[in-house]
Formats: sequence, C-alpha cells, structure tokens
Amino acid sequence: MTIKQTVNNPYSPWMDDDAPEADIVISSRVRLARDIAGYPFPHLLSGQSAEDVMDIVGRAVEDEDLVRRLGKLKVVRLSQLPSLDRQILVDKHLISPDLLKAGGEEAKGVVISEDERLSIMINEEDHLRIQCILSGLRLQDVYLLADAVDDALEKRVNYAFSDRYGFLTACLTNIGTGLRASVMLHLPALVASGGIRDVLTAVSKLGLTVRGLYGEGTEAAGNLFQLSNQITLGQSEEDIVSNLVSITRQVINRERTARRYIYQQKPEALQDKVSRAYGTMRHAYLLSAGEAMQLLSDVRLGVDTGLVKGLSHRTLSELMVVSRPAYLVKLGGRLSAQECDILRARLFREKMAEINQTNA
Amino acid sequence: MTIKQTVNNPYSPWMDDDAPEADIVISSRVRLARDIAGYPFPHLLSGQSAEDVMDIVGRAVEDEDLVRRLGKLKVVRLSQLPSLDRQILVDKHLISPDLLKAGGEEAKGVVISEDERLSIMINEEDHLRIQCILSGLRLQDVYLLADAVDDALEKRVNYAFSDRYGFLTACLTNIGTGLRASVMLHLPALVASGGIRDVLTAVSKLGLTVRGLYGEGTEAAGNLFQLSNQITLGQSEEDIVSNLVSITRQVINRERTARRYIYQQKPEALQDKVSRAYGTMRHAYLLSAGEAMQLLSDVRLGVDTGLVKGLSHRTLSELMVVSRPAYLVKLGGRLSAQECDILRARLFREKMAEINQTNA
Repeated sequence: MTIKQTVNNPYSPWMDDDAPEADIVISSRVRLARDIAGYPFPHLLSGQSAEDVMDIVGRAVEDEDLVRRLGKLKVVRLSQLPSLDRQILVDKHLISPDLLKAGGEEAKGVVISEDERLSIMINEEDHLRIQCILSGLRLQDVYLLADAVDDALEKRVNYAFSDRYGFLTACLTNIGTGLRASVMLHLPALVASGGIRDVLTAVSKLGLTVRGLYGEGTEAAGNLFQLSNQITLGQSEEDIVSNLVSITRQVINRERTARRYIYQQKPEALQDKVSRAYGTMRHAYLLSAGEAMQLLSDVRLGVDTGLVKGLSHRTLSELMVVSRPAYLVKLGGRLSAQECDILRARLFREKMAEINQTNA
Repeated sequence: MTIKQTVNNPYSPWMDDDAPEADIVISSRVRLARDIAGYPFPHLLSGQSAEDVMDIVGRAVEDEDLVRRLGKLKVVRLSQLPSLDRQILVDKHLISPDLLKAGGEEAKGVVISEDERLSIMINEEDHLRIQCILSGLRLQDVYLLADAVDDALEKRVNYAFSDRYGFLTACLTNIGTGLRASVMLHLPALVASGGIRDVLTAVSKLGLTVRGLYGEGTEAAGNLFQLSNQITLGQSEEDIVSNLVSITRQVINRERTARRYIYQQKPEALQDKVSRAYGTMRHAYLLSAGEAMQLLSDVRLGVDTGLVKGLSHRTLSELMVVSRPAYLVKLGGRLSAQECDILRARLFREKMAEINQTNA
C-alpha cells in the first residue's frame, strides 16, 4: 500500500536535486482550500455528513484524468494510520500538523499520490485541502498541477462558491482563491550576517507571511524559512503566484550576496564551519534534534558553495526527516531522549558512510 | 647532520608505542645536574672559562663506551642553531626553555644523540645537564641510561663533588644527587571527574612537584601533567626513582578507575566525545593551538579506551609537536595567528588522511 511506503521512506520527490534555484529554495508548494456546497464546514460537521464528504472525495479522486496524471488515488482514513505514521507525513510536509489535532479522527482522511507530489486532506479546516509540492523554485509548475487536480475534482464535487467572493472557506483568511502558495528557503548567510531581520520585515510589508520549517508557530530551525502569501481575496491565482515568485527572487539575491560576502571575507572560516559540520555528521555518537538541523544547514551551505563535495540536497533533506522523533521511534521503538540522540547519530553516520563508499 | 634531522622531524623515540603503562604515561625522564670543579657556575662564567667548559664536554662525549651505546656525539653551539630550531628542540622536550633565555648564547651548547634518548645541555643553569628520555613508564631504565652516561663522562670530567653534600650545583635545590626524575602523565578522566585536585594535593604532600607540558609555569594543556621529585638531597638516586615510580603507579590507578567509571556510566557520551574529536581532526580547516591540544587529549583517551581505532600514540605525540608555533613557522615561513591555525589544521588533516589510507 502506497501510504505505507511513504511513511517508511524518508525520501520524498520534493527533495530532488537539479531543481531551479535549489541552492536556496528547498521546495515550492501550493494548497487550495475547498469546501463542498450544502455541508457545514468541518468544525460543525456531524457524523453522517462527515462520511458523505469522505465518500464524495473518494469518488472524485477516481477521475480518469487524475489517475492518468498521478496514478491510482485512494482515501485513507486518519484512524487507519498509526499515530507515528501520521506524524511522519507531517514531517515529510505531506499533511499539516492541524490535521492531527484531537477530535473527529474518524471523519478525517488523506489522499497521497504515489509520487507524493499531490496530497489531499479531508475534513481538516476545510472539506478539502489540495496540496502540491515540488523541489526548487517551481511555483508556476506546482500551481498548474494543483489547478489541474482542482479542475478534475470539480467534475464530481460541487464546490461552495460565490460569484462575488469566490471559493467559500471555513476561515475568512482563505476566502476567494483559497490559495496559499509557499516556498521553503534556506537562508544561512542572511541569518549569519544579521541581514535576515531587514529581509523579513520587508517581506511582511509586502503582504507575505514568514514561518519556520513546520508552519505556523514553529521556529526557523536549520535556517529554513517558509514564505507564503497572506491574502487570498482580490487577487487572481496567477497574480498571487507571480508576486510570491518575484519577492522570492529578491530574497534569493540577498542571500546570494550575503553568501558571496562571507565567502570573500572569510573563506577559511566558512570552509572550517561547513567541513567541521560534515565531520560531526560522520563521527558523532550523540546528536540532538537541534544540533542535527544546524549541521544539515551548515553542510547544505557547504554543498551549495562548492566547499563540500559528494553530498546531494536529497540526502540532506532525507536526514531532516530522519532527525525527527517520529521516524526514530518508528525505527527504534519507544525511545528515551538520549536513545533518540544515539539513534539519530547512528543513522547520520550510516548514511554518511554509505555515501563515502559510493563516492570512493 | 643529526641535529638538523632532529628539528625537521616532529617524531622522537619517546613517542613510541608499546611502552609500559603507555595508556597513561607518555614518557619518563631523568636529568642529572653536574658542574665541573674549578670553574664558576655558568651565571658567573666568563668568556674563556665558558669555552673551556665547552671543550671539556666536547672531549668527554667522545668516550668510546658512550659512542658504542649512543652513536657519535657532538657538541653544537646554541649560536649555530637558528632560533626556530632551538624552539623545536624545546617542543620535543630535548632541551629546556631555560637554555634559550637571552645571554651567553656563544657559551651554551647542546649534545643530542641520534636516537634522541640522550641530550646534554652545556652551560644552562649548570655546566652539564644530562637528560635521558624514554616512552612510557620506564624510570628505572632511563635512570640506568643516564647513570651510564654520567659514569662515562666522569672519566674525563672532574665533577664538583663534596663528600658531605654530594654533587655541587648552581642552585641549592639540585645539590646532592643532582637528579630530577619525571614522568609525563595523561589524566583526562581525573580532570573530567574533578578528582585531579585531590590527586595533585596528595602528590605535593608526598614531596613531588606537578607541572604542565613544558615545565615550570606552564599550564596542563591537553590534560598532561609532569610529576617530578622535589628533593635531591638526603635520598639515594634509587630511592628517588622508586618513590616516583610508586606514586606514579597510584596516580595511574586513580586515572584508570576514573576512566572505567566514565566508561561505565556514560559510554555513549565518551564515545561521542572522542569520536567527534577524531572527526574534527580530520575535517577542521582552522585549528587553534589550544583546541588542537584538547582534541589530541580526547582522541588519545579514545585510543586508550579502545573506542578509536587505527591511531598510534606516536602519531598523537608527533601532532603535539606539529601543533607548536615553531614547527609551523619552520614549515610555512612567517605566519599570522590565523595562518598558523590554517596550517595546523591542514597538517592534522593530511596526517589523518595518510593514516586512513594506510588503514584502508
């Protein structure tokens, strides 16, 4: 079963290398909030109506166009998934932490395509949350994919839609396009130089939201920042996406300038930092989650400045998922905090040894 | 020429592996202070008399027994040695920092055997300082060697000697036997556990002196401590040596107990610490002298607890000499502090890569 493979494998295609601007942009994501006409929003949804929503989506994802493009799709009830597996899906950015909030597990569901580019959450905040994700800066592509999925579903789902406001959603902040486009950026040089503050202030003034690695309320661990549009109403989907692309390009330029500056001013310090991080990944026997994220960030910067050879973005992104408690516990059973640190370090060492062997 | 090879090679036979108690005792050393009857002590020595002393020693070291045992020996004037080379001899523990004190360079000299087990300083504090050094806990052996050298020299040198006091020396603290026996100990577990304070207090009460790596007034960098006898008068040479051996054995036991405790209580933390140090030695691009000493100490503990494989004591001791500014400057020319750190890191990486290749 697909979803089992998904949770057993830390890899996801959004980690792939050779994507545009992949030295700074980890991934591009679009999600569309959609609700079904004639049904209360999920927070007011009763048992039978919730079942109806599941059924409607279940039939809709059997659409031939969808299957041709993304393979066979199937609704999996959240209640069918062990809680560790649910958390791993969050860690892989395939579902939101909100979906895991207590209550209504029976009525919640998830659809994930085999290639993991598409995931649909059912009865999260809205009846449907369609999400597409690709590696690098590919917002246009990812929007087109989400739009195609949306069109296909619309054939069998009667969306709640107002001619005046657009798509109607459970929360006012999503009304209109229901579109949230986001990019995950790696900004170590702007953090190191302190320039990040100005950038984040400017970005907020331009109507974007900045979050950490796992969405709202999470810190920017590993120098990762998620930029997304704030406004969903009064702009076309194309404008939202192109606006985010254009601001992202400006942030990319700032980060590249900061990297060049560090590289020119203190090449040895940079080489030392990224290379020590590499050495620690190879040799540590205890690794906290926080240190792991910092090492991954340092080594990624090393890869992207050409100072560290033989490591792919994919490996580093996989190790981000591997670092998370859910994956460790899935592998090692119930673990104390120290046992987590031991296992995390072991997995890092093994991965690095495997890579070294391949390169040798 | 022998002394040139000596300063060009960071290795010295006192670094050799497979010596007794080498997991804790780096080296054993004995020095005999001797003065020549009828000549003022060096600090009062005038030009011609200083020359006479040089000549007397120069002839004495041609003794057949000595040559048979230690190869051809030759007096080298300090003034013939570039100042970097002098410092490297200090860093290799073959001469004392005191010999390099300003003044009287013309009259000072040094004799070093090809195997570096014997060195004789001329016109340091005394006319002769005979020093022998061996790896591990071999105080009896090293004393016997020094004694044999002393006997051989005595054939041609008329030592200042009093039937009542024994050998007469420039400083009262050396009168009698003129003997200072010392051991260099690596005590990382006692330092980590805090137990070192009690040990040092006890050792002082037993009439021993504790110093750092480079003698008086130097700190215990790299968890290295030099233990030596305080008293030279009123005890036989054999008693001084066997007393130091017996106290050293007690310190060794304490250190071993502390290591076992750490190993049993926190095996992962120990493995993590020594392995990270190994990784940093392999991968750093900037390495300060202080950090280098700490890494060498951590990795040595790893070697001695079996947690780090494929590294010898010899390599670690060589890197101690390589770490010192004199060796770096000899290799790299005039260097800024940062350039020293860069070169030190490079030499560490190269040595580790060489070892890795050999082990592969």
